[in-house]
Amino acid sequence: MFAAYTMSPEFIQTQTDITRIISRHLKLEEGRRILKGNCPFHADHSDSLMVSPVKNIFKCFGCGKEGGPIEFVMAMENMSYDEAVKSLALEFGV
Amino acid sequence: MFAAYTMSPEFIQTQTDITRIISRHLKLEEGRRILKGNCPFHADHSDSLMVSPVKNIFKCFGCGKEGGPIEFVMAMENMSYDEAVKSLALEFGV
Repeated sequence: MFAAYTMSPEFIQTQTDITRIISRHLKLEEGRRILKGNCPFHADHSDSLMVSPVKNIFKCFGCGKEGGPIEFVMAMENMSYDEAVKSLALEFGV
Repeated sequence: MFAAYTMSPEFIQTQTDITRIISRHLKLEEGRRILKGNCPFHADHSDSLMVSPVKNIFKCFGCGKEGGPIEFVMAMENMSYDEAVKSLALEFGV
């Protein structure tokens, strides 16, 4: 192990377990599940698109595109709002 | 099931599974794990404090307090930067 005087602030900041430190003072629970992937709306190689299954929304932190199922279908299929609603209704309604 | 014409845009927006819709076009993977809890730095009853074990940082979306292990100990124990570094070094270094 390291003696105290050999531990730099940088080492302490990155290597001491913040979950353990905070858990001494309050109860931590699992947060919301988020999925991620390469955004289809811009050139993306770093999984900028976040999807929240609980909120049923997506948001790209690269290009800013965001919304729900309707906005995704509009952008992906190049449809109007009404066309996207109808498409989803037909797919999920029968 | 619902006939297409009975499905409101609001129903479609909230009830059609966005994960399934997006997964037809790109591969979605589990995002970073986030923990949450009641922030000890302001009156909080809604788990505003987020903790990222991977980044080893915390951030409260209520009061804005954020940082790593050093900043958490400084705020929690009312310590100076040097005192917090020393405290963590002693705890994790031996």
